[in-house]
Amino acid sequence: MSNVTLTGSQYGKAENRLVRITRDTDRHEIEDLNVTSQLRGDFDAAHYEGDNSHVVATDTQKNTIFSFARDGIGSPEEFLHRLAEHFTSSFDWVSGGRWAAEQFGWSRIADHDHTFYRSAPEVRTAVLVRDGDDETYISGFYGLTVLKSTASGFVGYPKDPYTTLPETEDRIMATDIACRWRYNTSDVDFNASYEAIKKTIMEAFGAEYSKALQHTLFQMAEAVVENHPEVDEIRFSCPNKHHFTSDLSHTNQDNPNVVFYAADRPYGLIEANFAREGAATKDEAWVGIAGYC
Amino acid sequence: MSNVTLTGSQYGKAENRLVRITRDTDRHEIEDLNVTSQLRGDFDAAHYEGDNSHVVATDTQKNTIFSFARDGIGSPEEFLHRLAEHFTSSFDWVSGGRWAAEQFGWSRIADHDHTFYRSAPEVRTAVLVRDGDDETYISGFYGLTVLKSTASGFVGYPKDPYTTLPETEDRIMATDIACRWRYNTSDVDFNASYEAIKKTIMEAFGAEYSKALQHTLFQMAEAVVENHPEVDEIRFSCPNKHHFTSDLSHTNQDNPNVVFYAADRPYGLIEANFAREGAATKDEAWVGIAGYC
Amino acid sequence: MSNVTLTGSQYGKAENRLVRITRDTDRHEIEDLNVTSQLRGDFDAAHYEGDNSHVVATDTQKNTIFSFARDGIGSPEEFLHRLAEHFTSSFDWVSGGRWAAEQFGWSRIADHDHTFYRSAPEVRTAVLVRDGDDETYISGFYGLTVLKSTASGFVGYPKDPYTTLPETEDRIMATDIACRWRYNTSDVDFNASYEAIKKTIMEAFGAEYSKALQHTLFQMAEAVVENHPEVDEIRFSCPNKHHFTSDLSHTNQDNPNVVFYAADRPYGLIEANFAREGAATKDEAWVGIAGYC
Amino acid sequence: MSNVTLTGSQYGKAENRLVRITRDTDRHEIEDLNVTSQLRGDFDAAHYEGDNSHVVATDTQKNTIFSFARDGIGSPEEFLHRLAEHFTSSFDWVSGGRWAAEQFGWSRIADHDHTFYRSAPEVRTAVLVRDGDDETYISGFYGLTVLKSTASGFVGYPKDPYTTLPETEDRIMATDIACRWRYNTSDVDFNASYEAIKKTIMEAFGAEYSKALQHTLFQMAEAVVENHPEVDEIRFSCPNKHHFTSDLSHTNQDNPNVVFYAADRPYGLIEANFAREGAATKDEAWVGIAGYC
Repeated sequence: MSNVTLTGSQYGKAENRLVRITRDTDRHEIEDLNVTSQLRGDFDAAHYEGDNSHVVATDTQKNTIFSFARDGIGSPEEFLHRLAEHFTSSFDWVSGGRWAAEQFGWSRIADHDHTFYRSAPEVRTAVLVRDGDDETYISGFYGLTVLKSTASGFVGYPKDPYTTLPETEDRIMATDIACRWRYNTSDVDFNASYEAIKKTIMEAFGAEYSKALQHTLFQMAEAVVENHPEVDEIRFSCPNKHHFTSDLSHTNQDNPNVVFYAADRPYGLIEANFAREGAATKDEAWVGIAGYC
Repeated sequence: MSNVTLTGSQYGKAENRLVRITRDTDRHEIEDLNVTSQLRGDFDAAHYEGDNSHVVATDTQKNTIFSFARDGIGSPEEFLHRLAEHFTSSFDWVSGGRWAAEQFGWSRIADHDHTFYRSAPEVRTAVLVRDGDDETYISGFYGLTVLKSTASGFVGYPKDPYTTLPETEDRIMATDIACRWRYNTSDVDFNASYEAIKKTIMEAFGAEYSKALQHTLFQMAEAVVENHPEVDEIRFSCPNKHHFTSDLSHTNQDNPNVVFYAADRPYGLIEANFAREGAATKDEAWVGIAGYC
Repeated sequence: MSNVTLTGSQYGKAENRLVRITRDTDRHEIEDLNVTSQLRGDFDAAHYEGDNSHVVATDTQKNTIFSFARDGIGSPEEFLHRLAEHFTSSFDWVSGGRWAAEQFGWSRIADHDHTFYRSAPEVRTAVLVRDGDDETYISGFYGLTVLKSTASGFVGYPKDPYTTLPETEDRIMATDIACRWRYNTSDVDFNASYEAIKKTIMEAFGAEYSKALQHTLFQMAEAVVENHPEVDEIRFSCPNKHHFTSDLSHTNQDNPNVVFYAADRPYGLIEANFAREGAATKDEAWVGIAGYC
Repeated sequence: MSNVTLTGSQYGKAENRLVRITRDTDRHEIEDLNVTSQLRGDFDAAHYEGDNSHVVATDTQKNTIFSFARDGIGSPEEFLHRLAEHFTSSFDWVSGGRWAAEQFGWSRIADHDHTFYRSAPEVRTAVLVRDGDDETYISGFYGLTVLKSTASGFVGYPKDPYTTLPETEDRIMATDIACRWRYNTSDVDFNASYEAIKKTIMEAFGAEYSKALQHTLFQMAEAVVENHPEVDEIRFSCPNKHHFTSDLSHTNQDNPNVVFYAADRPYGLIEANFAREGAATKDEAWVGIAGYC
């Protein structure tokens, strides 16, 4: 008998590239998603013995995704909910799972009826974690690169023998915003909420002087919690994309924060979780979501 | 004595990530480029004997780029011209070279004075090829994903024993437009021309029924040549990004071009070069530019 | 006063690309790492008020990494331990953190003393999580692509209206192995253990008939736990890289598992955690490690 | 009538991921390729008028590739030859084309009969250019990262006001070798030749002191031309992957070429073409191959 125990598992079909055209009228609509379905439940026999009687094939999960899309998407969150309902109600041993989607944003070319270009710089994300009857929606985005060319500094940090960084009260601050927020309800217009929260975050990024990227993350979190009652929690994982002023002294040129070298690696990496005062926590829903501590 | 001859070379510093902030007023401007400098000329001794007396260090080329940026960018093409002038006039044995830039597009967040987000889906490209006194400007972009959800078909192609593709008069057509055009003059507002040509291409993509991606490439080329007298040549390298209708027959669902699976690989790859009738050709300027036949 | 609370954070410098040459004799050695340092502790004031008096600059963390490398690396795990010791003992408010490294494998070219090529297909990973006095080592690798051309099948799974996959007793099974294991001790030769565990996993992959990828993950986990007493836990996140037999019937060719189309997306994604029977669990150490449920 | 002329084109199906298992005995063999087929010829009507009567569908090209693989691969070059023969002989208007393959290298796990891992760090490339009866084979590889930890320097280069780089007689030199060579014959064992040439290049990389990467490229070219009479030409496009010695002076540590920071961008980029003395040139066959000047 084995001395090894299965302590957790999930499985499914990842990255189903689904494009759905709504063409009820001549003015078409496009929805473009990357959908992942993963089931949780009693899959012990599959691992221990290769008994697949509980293993809803990942190919079947794929077919289900494309089939369900025939009746529309609406929002990634609503689509994931339909998938979750289906799998947990169809198979006794499926007690929950994680369903996730990325959505890519398109705009019309010159307001044309059926011609589009991929316009959104960021990728929208949605995750639905289901455990029995408990359902948690975690939405967000990544890949939104923002930069402020002034009104950012970094001073007052501890100095030790390894410290060589000079203090500055004026620098470029840039990051790729990656964030996810947890909704405290499913009774929300997810598309409208997404656009509104993204706008809040973008505007908060530049609204005040930044004393550090940590400080800015708090400013953005505060703005979201204050303006969006449907959100109880927001988490950020953001690189500090360093822009170093070029040293032009060898040619007797000054450089008053005009010419910068944008570095790739290493980069600062700032990760912070914020919650609404007094809100219940749901750490278990965040487990396994990459890059969030 | 060696029986090996150096038949061609170029070298320099690639991918200098240069960010330039214009901050003469409170309303800042940002220019964000990736600049590559490569010199051509008499570098035989460096290869054959390791004699570096002609080798302008790639580090020196890098420093020159950042130093020149202190006086402004303007447009990638103008900036490359200043670099080309400098290197070919400063070093006898540098007879020419290839200077290239990518430019990334930013927009203001909520019209803020100094806060920006990276908004352009495409990357703008510029290449300046210099050979003695002869200078050629080749500009373009890549990464612009476009899609038409109807008004595209593919019929009338030859059938052989390997053919299984059914004809269709209605399909999705999607591609990532990568194109480069050759200017017949340097007396042009490169920034304005870039925006105008991009707009022409995008609108031509959807303007007419497409009988094949080849057909659409011609439509776009024709629109550019007709509307932009400063352009003598345009070349495309475009994937046909297949969107397959999902077969939903196992659940008795129809699929009238509503649900699609967006495939990664393989993809069609259509490359075509177009020139203005009667214009001189300059094939030598295109040598070594990736993806163009 | 704000109604937002910081509920968790970590920050530091990510992806420090560190190469260390040991050159005490003419026969050099190379160690090539990508090191990330992230601190945890009391950083509330930095977020809430922009008070950086606790913020050990990420630049300082970078300098510390390169400085410590002057005295050697040894193994990524030992190197991370020295960093953890330093930061937690130097700064009162740093109660712990996560230090991580990737290591890239090199081999000598033709047994040359100082010429190497990057030979390892996989990337070795090491994570050290420190919380007060408690230290957890989680090591692993990713990017090891393996394939068995037979002795794999998939049968006996549930059929529902969305199921179209035919059963098979002979198929290709391929995956990119990504796994991490938790050591129950720091009293181990980490380099030797890494090589031995990797060998165990690779050999277990092909040792027995596979009834599903889940089944194979268990076989690999069992082999590790049985043969490596220093390991209490191992977790896998593995794609099922589908290889579909090409349908050649239109040319009247058979295809007895000879010609395959290797698909990109979608792919199966199988994630499973295994622990030694009776071993203590340490789920908190795994939080925030991407791709492990 | 249009004032735009089609001046060149090629099209086909790109990146067909083809895996071929030879299983005549219990000891299987694996061939893993990424095949691209592109046709050249008279395709004017397709572009100008959307008349597809000459357009051999890219889907048909894909089917042909998988069908031909049923009879075996042998070497990428031989496989491309069969494709070229087929397309140019089957369709009058197809006067030539470019067929290309990448091949990925696998090894057996513990000498197992049917279990493999992807072991080759480099990707093998093959291109067959056909123009009427004229056929050119250009083969090579990319992605082979090599490094010498000493026996490399860079001195004697011109100094100008932009020069800050100090001379050095001892540094790390590292590059990702990307090269392609042109065969002067098709009467060659392509697999054996590939392995032999790769070995020649790798050993030449470290054989002698390097006065610059240009110098090393020549050393490698010379070794290939001298030892491989089947090759008339070889071209390199190689980054100079900078490894900067860390400045540890703030902690009073020396750094005698022991601790390095491996930079991403910018990097030197050295491109050089070499030919056998007196050999005919075939520049036209190289047109459109990325990264070679």
